[in-house]
Formats: sequence, C-alpha cells, structure tokens
Amino acid sequence: MRIGIYGYGNLGRGVEKALALNPDMELVGVFTRRDPATVTTETGAPVYAAERVEDFESAIDVLILCGGSATDLPEMTPALARHFNVVDSFDTHARIPEHFARVDEAALRTAHTALISGGWDPGLFSLARLYMNAALPQGRDYTFWGRGVSQGHSDAIRRIPGVKDARQYTVPIAEAVARVRAGENPELTTREKHLRECYVVAEEGADRALIEKTIREMPNYFADYDTTVTFVTEEELKRNHGALPHGGQVIRSGKTSAKNGHVMEFSLKLDSNPEFTGSVLLACARAVGKIYARESYGCHTLFDVAPADLSPLDPAELRKRLL
Amino acid sequence: MRIGIYGYGNLGRGVEKALALNPDMELVGVFTRRDPATVTTETGAPVYAAERVEDFESAIDVLILCGGSATDLPEMTPALARHFNVVDSFDTHARIPEHFARVDEAALRTAHTALISGGWDPGLFSLARLYMNAALPQGRDYTFWGRGVSQGHSDAIRRIPGVKDARQYTVPIAEAVARVRAGENPELTTREKHLRECYVVAEEGADRALIEKTIREMPNYFADYDTTVTFVTEEELKRNHGALPHGGQVIRSGKTSAKNGHVMEFSLKLDSNPEFTGSVLLACARAVGKIYARESYGCHTLFDVAPADLSPLDPAELRKRLL
Repeated sequence: MRIGIYGYGNLGRGVEKALALNPDMELVGVFTRRDPATVTTETGAPVYAAERVEDFESAIDVLILCGGSATDLPEMTPALARHFNVVDSFDTHARIPEHFARVDEAALRTAHTALISGGWDPGLFSLARLYMNAALPQGRDYTFWGRGVSQGHSDAIRRIPGVKDARQYTVPIAEAVARVRAGENPELTTREKHLRECYVVAEEGADRALIEKTIREMPNYFADYDTTVTFVTEEELKRNHGALPHGGQVIRSGKTSAKNGHVMEFSLKLDSNPEFTGSVLLACARAVGKIYARESYGCHTLFDVAPADLSPLDPAELRKRLL
Repeated sequence: MRIGIYGYGNLGRGVEKALALNPDMELVGVFTRRDPATVTTETGAPVYAAERVEDFESAIDVLILCGGSATDLPEMTPALARHFNVVDSFDTHARIPEHFARVDEAALRTAHTALISGGWDPGLFSLARLYMNAALPQGRDYTFWGRGVSQGHSDAIRRIPGVKDARQYTVPIAEAVARVRAGENPELTTREKHLRECYVVAEEGADRALIEKTIREMPNYFADYDTTVTFVTEEELKRNHGALPHGGQVIRSGKTSAKNGHVMEFSLKLDSNPEFTGSVLLACARAVGKIYARESYGCHTLFDVAPADLSPLDPAELRKRLL
C-alpha cells in the first residue's frame, strides 16, 4: 500500500515514524505548504510542494491528511477526497456531522473512499464508548484525558501578551477516576474531573501576576478548572516539558440486573501522542484501501469499519491467532 | 427484533435478564432439552421443548444458542444455522477455525447469518487484541483473567471422588499485571500469570489430603499453577461463593520509535459473568439481524462486524453522540 503524508508537523512526523512498523506499506512522499527545500524528513522520505499533490493521483493509494482541525481539515479533506482516498484525524467533536457530510459528498462524486476522525479520541476512545454502550445498554460512561499535553491549551497560553512559550498538561483527578472505577456512577462537574497544569516562560519584564490571572480566568480553556501556573525558564521548559505524552481512559459502569453491576475500562498511556496517533491513522489507511478495493465509496468513520479491515492479517489467520 | 433463547442454564438466564435492557428486542421464548413443565423462567417467558424449535422459524429473527462449547455447540450451531440466524459463544479457542467452517457452510446453504464466539473472551477481549495489534504493530499483548469463577475448573474438581461441590477462582497475579502495565514486556510463565483458588466441599469421611493432591497435580487444569485448596462446608460455599463474578484485562505495550513506548489496556470487572455475556450476545444478535437484512449470509465473528451494527442508534446519531 502506497501512502502519502499531506502536512508535515508533529502528526506528519508521527505517521512517518510509524510507517516503519508496517511492512505492508511504503511512503511515497511528504507534501508540505512550506518550501520543500527547507524541510528535512525523519526517514529521508522525499518532500514535495503541497500544490503538486494532484500529480501523484495514480502513485498514492491512500493520502493521510495531517492538518489541524480548526482551519485546515474542514477545507482540505473534502478537496483532497476528490482526488485521493483519504484519512484524517478531525477532532472538533461538535462539527463532525457537518465534516462527514462534506467529505462524503466529495468522495462519492469521484468514487473515492475516505475515513475521518481517526486516531484515539476521536478514534479508539470512540470505539470503546460504542462497544461499551452496546454491551451494557444501561449505564454511564466517563472519559478522562491525561496526564498529557494539550496543544490547544498550550497555544492559548502562548497567545497571551508577555508569554514566550508554554506547555499545558491536562491531568485527570485520581479521586474521580477511582470513584468511577468503583462503579459509583458519580455526577462530576468539569472541575471535579480534570486539573490543568501550566508551565510558562514569561518574556523579560512581563507582569507575571497578570499572566497568571489571564490564564486562570480564560473562558472555555481554564475558567472551569482548578489551574496551576508555574513560571519556568526556557531551558527548563525544553528539558522537562519537551515531550508530547498523553493518554486517558474511557470507563463505563452499569447493571444487568438489580444486584449485578459491571465496570468496563479502556485506557491508554502514550509517550508520544503524535506517534501513536500516526500509527492508528496507518491502520485506518489500511482499512480504507480494503474498503476502496470492495468499491465501497464515500465517507466512513471507525464505527463503519469491520475491525478485521484494520489488520494486515487475513480473516482466517485473525480468527486463529486473536479470537 | 424477535429473540429466541436455546438452552436455559446460567447463560440462557443471563440473556433473558439482559433482554430487559434492550427495548428494541422482545423474547419469543426459551427452548430447553429438559421437560418444559419443570422450567420456570426469570421473567415469565414461555418455555418450549427444544425439539419444537423449528416450528418457530418464522417467529424468531435471531436465535441465541446457550449451550456448552465442549459438546453442545459443535453440533447445535451448524444444525440450527440451517433454520435460523444464530449467535453462539463458542469458546474453545483451538477449535474456532473448524467450528467457523461448519457453521459457515450450513448458514450459506440456506441463506442465514450466523455469528460465533460472541461474549467477552472470545469476544470483547478478542476485539481489544485486534485493535491493539492494528494500532501498535510492534509490541506484545497479554491477557489476564479474573478474579473470577471458572466453571470448567470447578467442574473438574467436582468430578474427583469424595468431592461434593466446589468453586474455583482464577486469580491474576498482581505483580505480573503491574509489570505488564509498566511496559516491561516480561516473559511470564503460566505459573507467574495466574493463581488458582479452590473451595471444596468434601463428602463425609472423604480423604481430604488425597483430594487436595489430586487437584494440585491435575494436568492442564492445575499442575502448572500455584493452587490453594480450602475445604469449606456446603453452607459456606453457598453463602460466600454463590456468585459468578469474572473479568480480567488485555494489555498491549510496544514502541513506535526507539524512545517512545505506549501501553493500551482493556479491562472488565463483572459481578455476573453470565449476565454480562448474555448482554454482549444480544448486541451480537442485533448486528446479525442488520447483516441478514443486507443479505450478507454465512458465518461471522465480531472481527467482521462494523461496530455500528451492534448499536441500536443509527450511524448519524452514533457519530454525533459517541465519536
């Protein structure tokens, strides 16, 4: 299977690294909106200008779109689904129905296959929620994220005047996780589920008290959480907060009868969010290739993909080894 | 969706109870090989003699087969797949390929849809292994079971002369689980993964030392494990060991690059193994009904089922609520 990577930030690099783990796949090239001459890839893969991508229509089986959900993917995925089978990791939950509809229309029009919202949340966590809801129809599920770096929250801090750099960790509150695991089915407010830890490099002479206040009171991002702000030097940020770990868990508990309750949990502990997400996107690309070969076009999500399609093993082998 | 339950032991009762949680399903009846007059159902569902089941061909959409894997299902599932869409929980891992082939042939011949090996292991644990292997192609996975009652091991003890009743718990060894969770990828022997705890009611005058020795040295079942044997009275067994809890976890850890490792875990903690298994089989029955409606016949496993087919929600609703 011939793979293209469109967009070459952290996620694009993650996909590239994960490709080495999948002997049934090869990387045709990386497409970037920057000047290709300025981009060096992790594995020496060739780099092309994004606007040349259509020249590769017949050379690429599945194109993996590694843009951001805020502004890139809403345009990029429908546009590229007219020329390629595509996979993206669109993660703006509220806009998924609209994104799905636009990608579906574009892909159907030209007989391509697309999969949106691959990765782990949305993605593997969504699958966990779906399987758990099907297995235990009466119950309640909870998603906890972290401890991990939220790029969106880190960016929000960086936009505050006087901030040079920042890193934000989302931290699940252990007591809340323990209560959910115990099957208590508690009502939990936003504040009771997660903490936010911020590490901030201030510009020289900046008003640190004002920065801290601005962070803590920022609506949507921080106001509803207990937030800690720690000022660090640029060196400390680089040394202690240079990685992109993440993870979390989906937990559902419920009953099948008055006396019998059950707790189901799916959890991830990731050293590198972009590398793991990239690895999941490659499994999605494999499924897209198989679905396309069956002439099933249009937009899909992991909810529509038979699990066997994600695997390089054939169905008989899978039944023998993993069932 | 009109459901029939074929076989009415612990699992059949579990399916019956779980039906109350699924408003899109109704129970047509329970089929038993015992005298129907001697069987009282949990919810007052009608009871019929097993040999009458073919009279219900047009009244039942999916028949759930609740027989045992050792001798019942290998005959029962292919035979009934000639007349019904069927779901079973066949769990003899080594014989799954052969069972699949026989059920597939029977179902295809008469244009029915079958799903075998539903439940949690095989079933949800198998799905966890498949998704984890696809997401993290280089790594290693481990399955731990328990703490829970193993019916097979309990039965093996009951067959020893001088044993009146027994209950066996499979217990994962906490240290082994902790090492796997920490991403150590250890080599673990059978003995290092699980303990076996046996609670035994001896007949009056039986040789307890001999019973204990016979249990500990029983090949396949106990010889490869550290096994504890505790003699209890019939009343103690009933009072303290009357439930059928189970659970366990699938854990996979692996790397996407030299420095970045990841740990994935799916775990279950079940108060009642048969009720939870029954609930999963109903989700499988729902999928079988949808697959049959699309005229896709033959044998399936959960590996072949798009997750959305297990849910009562339509795809757009699923994307909106759970993705």
